[in-house]
Amino acid sequence: MMGRVFLLLFAAFLPNCSGYNSKWHYECTDGYCEKTLITENTTSPLSLAECNILCLDYASVWPQPTGNISIDNLTLIDVSAFSFTSEENTTISSLVEAAFGIFTCQFTLQLPRKPFLRNASSNGSAVQVQFEITDQDTEQLSFGTNESYTVRGLATDDGAINVTITAETFFGARHALETLSQLVVFDDLRNRTLFPASIAVSDQPAFNWRGVCLDTARNYITPKAIKRTLRAMAASKLNTFHWHLTDTASFPYVSSSHPELSEYGAYSSSKVYTDDDVKSIIEYARVRGIRVVPELDSPAHVGEGWQTSGVLTCFNQKPWTDYCAEPPCGQFDPSQSGVYDILEDLYGDLLTQFGTDVFHMGGDEVNVACWNITSNLTAWMVDEMGWGLSKSDFQEKVWPYFQNESAQRLYKQAGAQIPIILWSSDLTALDNVTSILPPEDYIIQIWDSADSSSIQTLLSQNYSVILSNYDGLYLDCGFAGWVTNGTNWCSPYKGWQTVYDNKPVNIAGTSVAQVLGGETVLWTEEAESDTVDSRLWPRAAAFAETLWSAPETTWEAAEERMLFHRERLVALGIGADALQPEWCRRNQQNCPT
Amino acid sequence: MMGRVFLLLFAAFLPNCSGYNSKWHYECTDGYCEKTLITENTTSPLSLAECNILCLDYASVWPQPTGNISIDNLTLIDVSAFSFTSEENTTISSLVEAAFGIFTCQFTLQLPRKPFLRNASSNGSAVQVQFEITDQDTEQLSFGTNESYTVRGLATDDGAINVTITAETFFGARHALETLSQLVVFDDLRNRTLFPASIAVSDQPAFNWRGVCLDTARNYITPKAIKRTLRAMAASKLNTFHWHLTDTASFPYVSSSHPELSEYGAYSSSKVYTDDDVKSIIEYARVRGIRVVPELDSPAHVGEGWQTSGVLTCFNQKPWTDYCAEPPCGQFDPSQSGVYDILEDLYGDLLTQFGTDVFHMGGDEVNVACWNITSNLTAWMVDEMGWGLSKSDFQEKVWPYFQNESAQRLYKQAGAQIPIILWSSDLTALDNVTSILPPEDYIIQIWDSADSSSIQTLLSQNYSVILSNYDGLYLDCGFAGWVTNGTNWCSPYKGWQTVYDNKPVNIAGTSVAQVLGGETVLWTEEAESDTVDSRLWPRAAAFAETLWSAPETTWEAAEERMLFHRERLVALGIGADALQPEWCRRNQQNCPT
Repeated sequence: MMGRVFLLLFAAFLPNCSGYNSKWHYECTDGYCEKTLITENTTSPLSLAECNILCLDYASVWPQPTGNISIDNLTLIDVSAFSFTSEENTTISSLVEAAFGIFTCQFTLQLPRKPFLRNASSNGSAVQVQFEITDQDTEQLSFGTNESYTVRGLATDDGAINVTITAETFFGARHALETLSQLVVFDDLRNRTLFPASIAVSDQPAFNWRGVCLDTARNYITPKAIKRTLRAMAASKLNTFHWHLTDTASFPYVSSSHPELSEYGAYSSSKVYTDDDVKSIIEYARVRGIRVVPELDSPAHVGEGWQTSGVLTCFNQKPWTDYCAEPPCGQFDPSQSGVYDILEDLYGDLLTQFGTDVFHMGGDEVNVACWNITSNLTAWMVDEMGWGLSKSDFQEKVWPYFQNESAQRLYKQAGAQIPIILWSSDLTALDNVTSILPPEDYIIQIWDSADSSSIQTLLSQNYSVILSNYDGLYLDCGFAGWVTNGTNWCSPYKGWQTVYDNKPVNIAGTSVAQVLGGETVLWTEEAESDTVDSRLWPRAAAFAETLWSAPETTWEAAEERMLFHRERLVALGIGADALQPEWCRRNQQNCPT
Repeated sequence: MMGRVFLLLFAAFLPNCSGYNSKWHYECTDGYCEKTLITENTTSPLSLAECNILCLDYASVWPQPTGNISIDNLTLIDVSAFSFTSEENTTISSLVEAAFGIFTCQFTLQLPRKPFLRNASSNGSAVQVQFEITDQDTEQLSFGTNESYTVRGLATDDGAINVTITAETFFGARHALETLSQLVVFDDLRNRTLFPASIAVSDQPAFNWRGVCLDTARNYITPKAIKRTLRAMAASKLNTFHWHLTDTASFPYVSSSHPELSEYGAYSSSKVYTDDDVKSIIEYARVRGIRVVPELDSPAHVGEGWQTSGVLTCFNQKPWTDYCAEPPCGQFDPSQSGVYDILEDLYGDLLTQFGTDVFHMGGDEVNVACWNITSNLTAWMVDEMGWGLSKSDFQEKVWPYFQNESAQRLYKQAGAQIPIILWSSDLTALDNVTSILPPEDYIIQIWDSADSSSIQTLLSQNYSVILSNYDGLYLDCGFAGWVTNGTNWCSPYKGWQTVYDNKPVNIAGTSVAQVLGGETVLWTEEAESDTVDSRLWPRAAAFAETLWSAPETTWEAAEERMLFHRERLVALGIGADALQPEWCRRNQQNCPT
């Protein structure tokens, strides 16, 4: 009779509380928000958003701060009375100005579209935000840039809330604004906007390299979609956009020195990244605390665009299964001196635009069989270099030759020996890899599976590494095969749970200090501008917490905050995927098995 | 030396043909379009779109016509000079008018946004479209509505192109417009719009029930997203939108007789379908040749909204694994006469709005354990009905009792014994099912796997069936688990290839005449308004061809047309998923293994 008694009791308490926009409110019980009927005995019912901020861990902030966070007294505020102060006329003033604008835009997007719905009553507190940034000169994120920040907020006697943000650099201060924007709460029971009258946060990231790698060559991704990606990255405190610009399938990058590459190699004359596009994307990222690292992948993963260069071999070679990882095949012929000349020009173009202090040269999936059928190359190997034609000749002589020659051209253009990133490969797996790729010059981005012995080997060889192990961080997995029926090579789909629990410390163990950080990766054979959002988000945000916070707990402890953060991303205009029925978000802890 | 010779030859023919927007054109070779360099010797280069229409099977129309299709002479047209004539002032005149408007809007979306880019030169032909529809009275699609059509188009002496569309009903004629809109070709080499000067098509569907089932209860789907779904359905000649309106997780439907159901059961006051929303969706569908079939699932799959009804049991019962298929649990208590009264009211509301000649009562996944712990029900079974409490008492007595009582209320409201659709279930698997659910009264929508013996059994019992076998047609499969880590229950993801090859004749064999058609299905535990498009499309369009055309060939033969159709959907504003790198679409037949 339990069920029936419950129903009768329930009916007896039918509410007559029409002052609220819902029959339900939320009560904080054991650290979670419990959906509860509003009755005439209910006093001060909480909306779900309010309850989440007051009740969930870390005031629901994503990623969870690594220092202290405490908030108190959600107070009615006047959303039109935010004001900002900062040191004026310094190197970073325009960055700070931009960040304030982004903050305002961002919290406004969390509110109802119609301004009159944002506060049912007036007389809310003004909020005064002040930046105190020690280093007024650093305007570009780099290795080791200090991203720490603290926030202190307190209501003053005159009713305003004063918030002071202190940070070593702009890049820490802007993260503080992300934290603050997550603390602007819309109470949808009463249509009013709230903010804590008391805030204390201290925070800094566990890993410095927190990235997303996006392939814009298998399918073209519009600048608009790239900017959505950057917006979601900033909201999750990710700081590195790794732009896989080109591949065998297309060459969308408009090089000022070699415009023929995109003229022949872009999918169409509109599916390109012009100088304006690139600059606009870099600046969009910079003001959001994100550095953009370009990747020009070679000597494999080249094809379209290079048809007239005289340095391309095996292009669209059949059967592709024998000569590359996916159609179309294509590699450079390292015996052609012209390839280094063109690459040098491209490095120059890219370094001028990106101003990067690190460069990604790709370097993955070189296919020996391709080089072996390139008679020009094999003739050069035998006749000019006096090498043999064994697998080791290709892997330990030709490939290092190419890498060294092209690296020298990069250094020449950079005017310095900047760090080079390479994907893990047969080259990085060589016993003598440290003599070919000195660990002080090269960073290895590992895409091998988490349990691969190659990871331990690279760490023992003293490489700094970036983790992108495919079994935890490849966000393109799990869809249909695209060369045949069935599933794609790295199925299954990596759920946010898998991504979240892909912890550097579990993979690198005691060598975790060599892990600079990691990147989720989206290869776009089966994604395009309209689907980039749902592939990346909220899963890339799950990994953002893993990198920022190095949480000791697993995904289960983060679930309710993850669902809430996904809603924030949607409010920002990101087409993030749905992780669960909304019921689970509104009935916390009721969906696990 | 092959590669090198090719490169040198290639370089020797560097084009100087700046009159075109690309370095590449397409040549029709062996039924496919081959990407080829434009040289000074190239005469009349074809854009990819032109080549697809002229070269691929069925003039690239999707779904492929079942009768004849031939087109000839792509001719410059004036896109602002389309005119339409039809019999005036008849019952269907407003439908016809709407369809002409949709056609114009639709082909315009395939053209560049900027009108001056649509035709580089003027003086294109006018196109005059005439409808000749026999039945001027049928304004609602129903069972057996004739959807056949023919098109005859020919250039006249005065330079115009006259197109005559003949059809028995409006619903055939509007399909003809979809075919025509696929024949409006934008030549992006020269910025001009073309149309065949000669067209002959005769066409009709193989199956009459060609649907998409969308769940709007696990997550709320906005009316805007539903309309996008309808737009894509119309473009693929699908004719049935099966609206799974409610479930345990939420009750977004605003019933005029029982508004409390959505007041308690909707996720929020804005996540509802008002009378205006419903009417607007139904009309949006109707003018696109789509009937909307509502599903009110019971006696399981009920919960939120019904808390105050006194007829709900097991709601959110724990552990859910014992009492239902997913959280939250919930079922009606069939012993409560009140349930039939409320259902009758709801049937009345729905029939008034939807005017449907068929009704979906759901009826899936009843859990005996739930009923068994409902003491009110068990007391009624024993004391009032003199039944036992064995599994068969619940399945063969209680469940049929509920089904019969609620069906009588539906008939009463409909004023006729309209066909009822039920999902396949333990009920439909009973040996004596035909006495409980007479095959002349019930249609079974089968979600069992294609090789399940239950399908053959239902066919042998003379049921008409709708195919939605989960292993071929459930589009929510393959993502992460949402109650735990891992994959969801029906993994892997069903690729378009699997969906396309899910042929009724392969499943039903010699009983295929009993197959009314089928539906792809999207359960939305892990999808929401922003992701509905990429889950459904282009896979639902793949099944559209299977149902319309009953092709004898498999997906391989349809691949290039599928890729082209996916581009059409994207042009219509549908966020369809990407199936392959664009390279494959531009280098036909180069991507298979």
